[in-house]
Amino acid sequence: MSGRFGFDLLRVDQSGARLGRLTTPHGVVETPAFMPVGTHGAVKGVTPRELRELGATMVLANAYHLAQRPGVETVQALGGLHALMAWDGPILTDSGGFQVMSLGTLVRVDDDGVRYRSHVDGRAGTLGPEDAVAVQEALGVDVAMALDECVSASAPRAAVVSAVARTTAWAARGLAARARPETALFGIVQGGFDEALRAASAEAISALGFDGYAVGGLSVGEPAAETARVAAATVGRLPVRQPRYLMGVGTPGDLLRFVAMGYDLFDCVLPTRNGRNGTLFTRQGKVMIRNAAHARDARPVEDGCPCYTCTRYSRGTLRHLVLGGEMLGARLATLHNLHFYLDLMREMRAALAEGTFPGRAAAAAGIWA
Amino acid sequence: MSGRFGFDLLRVDQSGARLGRLTTPHGVVETPAFMPVGTHGAVKGVTPRELRELGATMVLANAYHLAQRPGVETVQALGGLHALMAWDGPILTDSGGFQVMSLGTLVRVDDDGVRYRSHVDGRAGTLGPEDAVAVQEALGVDVAMALDECVSASAPRAAVVSAVARTTAWAARGLAARARPETALFGIVQGGFDEALRAASAEAISALGFDGYAVGGLSVGEPAAETARVAAATVGRLPVRQPRYLMGVGTPGDLLRFVAMGYDLFDCVLPTRNGRNGTLFTRQGKVMIRNAAHARDARPVEDGCPCYTCTRYSRGTLRHLVLGGEMLGARLATLHNLHFYLDLMREMRAALAEGTFPGRAAAAAGIWA
Repeated sequence: MSGRFGFDLLRVDQSGARLGRLTTPHGVVETPAFMPVGTHGAVKGVTPRELRELGATMVLANAYHLAQRPGVETVQALGGLHALMAWDGPILTDSGGFQVMSLGTLVRVDDDGVRYRSHVDGRAGTLGPEDAVAVQEALGVDVAMALDECVSASAPRAAVVSAVARTTAWAARGLAARARPETALFGIVQGGFDEALRAASAEAISALGFDGYAVGGLSVGEPAAETARVAAATVGRLPVRQPRYLMGVGTPGDLLRFVAMGYDLFDCVLPTRNGRNGTLFTRQGKVMIRNAAHARDARPVEDGCPCYTCTRYSRGTLRHLVLGGEMLGARLATLHNLHFYLDLMREMRAALAEGTFPGRAAAAAGIWA
Repeated sequence: MSGRFGFDLLRVDQSGARLGRLTTPHGVVETPAFMPVGTHGAVKGVTPRELRELGATMVLANAYHLAQRPGVETVQALGGLHALMAWDGPILTDSGGFQVMSLGTLVRVDDDGVRYRSHVDGRAGTLGPEDAVAVQEALGVDVAMALDECVSASAPRAAVVSAVARTTAWAARGLAARARPETALFGIVQGGFDEALRAASAEAISALGFDGYAVGGLSVGEPAAETARVAAATVGRLPVRQPRYLMGVGTPGDLLRFVAMGYDLFDCVLPTRNGRNGTLFTRQGKVMIRNAAHARDARPVEDGCPCYTCTRYSRGTLRHLVLGGEMLGARLATLHNLHFYLDLMREMRAALAEGTFPGRAAAAAGIWA
């Protein structure tokens, strides 16, 4: 257990959904929680003030990306990642295993770690399990992720077996390398789409004793039923008293489904990326704001939505701004989508507290199943 | 004089600088004032809430651009330009004469107006002096500009003479076409770089009796001394009791120079465009935030600056965000630059009120001469 890190499990619903409270050196996160994604140290187009107003409590960044640019020593010189992001709340970073394997060129993975050429400047780099912990501790984050080996969804079983074993070995080395008690460390479960391998990975990683547990390698393009099958097979093998983070998930329907399964933390680029592309989430379904049908529609994106965008701008205006490539259009769409996601999580937490889960969230998320 | 439009000249400094108050249907503008530019209906990347917090009182948009996209009828269907922009303060639009002549293709100008092909979709369009007024009135703006003929800085004298005559004729036709008392109409002085033609244009336009007077065709790439010479030769020919708007100007030094000359209103893309490109205005001079020297600089862009950016972000972070093409970098740089401009105007107004003009603004603007 880290310095000021803790997780209180407040209530477990009959569905399996959990109401919890994560305590970090930079504040408390009521769970289940969705973390907006700020890969390079900024949630695209959104200020920390707006994140606070939207009700975000914890944000995600990526250690690999930040290590490439601006570099760990630069982040340190600028006062650490909280100072860089001007965000005084909790920050979780992914170690970057997934990113280096998907973005780096000439990637080679062996027992020592990952050798790659940077996708930014082509420089050779290495990332071992100890490095991953050291980098995230140097960034000063509240929650770091152990280095894991990610294999593609189509990898043969032998490769998945090997990746599970390596991920466990790296997890142990990462734990042993810890030097900063203020940074909590989560282990990551791998195992592809094989339930037995997932169970074995979950048990091996859990046995090492992390501050929390993440499930990786899902939501990488597989059918939703596959994600659900594997996530369900994994969650019961994780410790009850620690937080559970389902990485890279998902749609609003996913959030409801996996909260009900007992996961506590989520991150996804969908609300921000879709916003920039002009796709908006509403309780009535998707609004493709570029469509001509919205051109003269003076209604807000979502009737009754209290977000900055919906209380001030019409669909027609948003369409005009997005079609014209105006930065403000991307901003306004992003704000609405983040509000939708964060509001959905608030509704789930309220329903859990009242014993009425999933409550109002069911209808909102259901349309996005 | 328009419905609720008025201009009170509160004080004239010995330098010639004027302290004034413009009253419009959407509120009061203390002058001298700088108008942030929102050509297509949005100040790039900035919300109305931020504009208010920065102290902007009046914004500028462009009737030609809005007529091309989303179209005047669409703006009307969405509740008018104030609703489109979600801005309840005063709006001034340029008629778009300058834009249609510089952006349109196959432009032909005759006494009836301008024939062009849209730079957006190639459709043929016409813009006559009556159309220009009708479009701006339909947008519902507080201040409209009469259609003027802009000629290039290198145009032969005969072309300038012709443009001055046509601008006067169009001004009269624009005035006669007015139908909406809530929209004030400003006439525009042309005349190239010929002082005699400028004087003649100023007198002809003034004689028609507009709500205010603009000087156009300057700040189009000519040397600063030329701009100043022509602006000085023109300003004395304009009515004392109406507001004077120097279009498209300029640097901080320009603002001080032309306020001192007796101009009241200004607009320029410099603070917003430079911000997006990573060039920041400070009282110590230009900060090119992309420069490597700023990489590990934990100081703000400008020490002591109370803007959102400077109170939360380091130079190093801003460099990281701008270099990475992060939308937030462009936003933060734009906020700082707009703060710099609007603060400079506040200082000039305060100095005029106290009889100490140019006061603190002199040093700030001086470095930008």
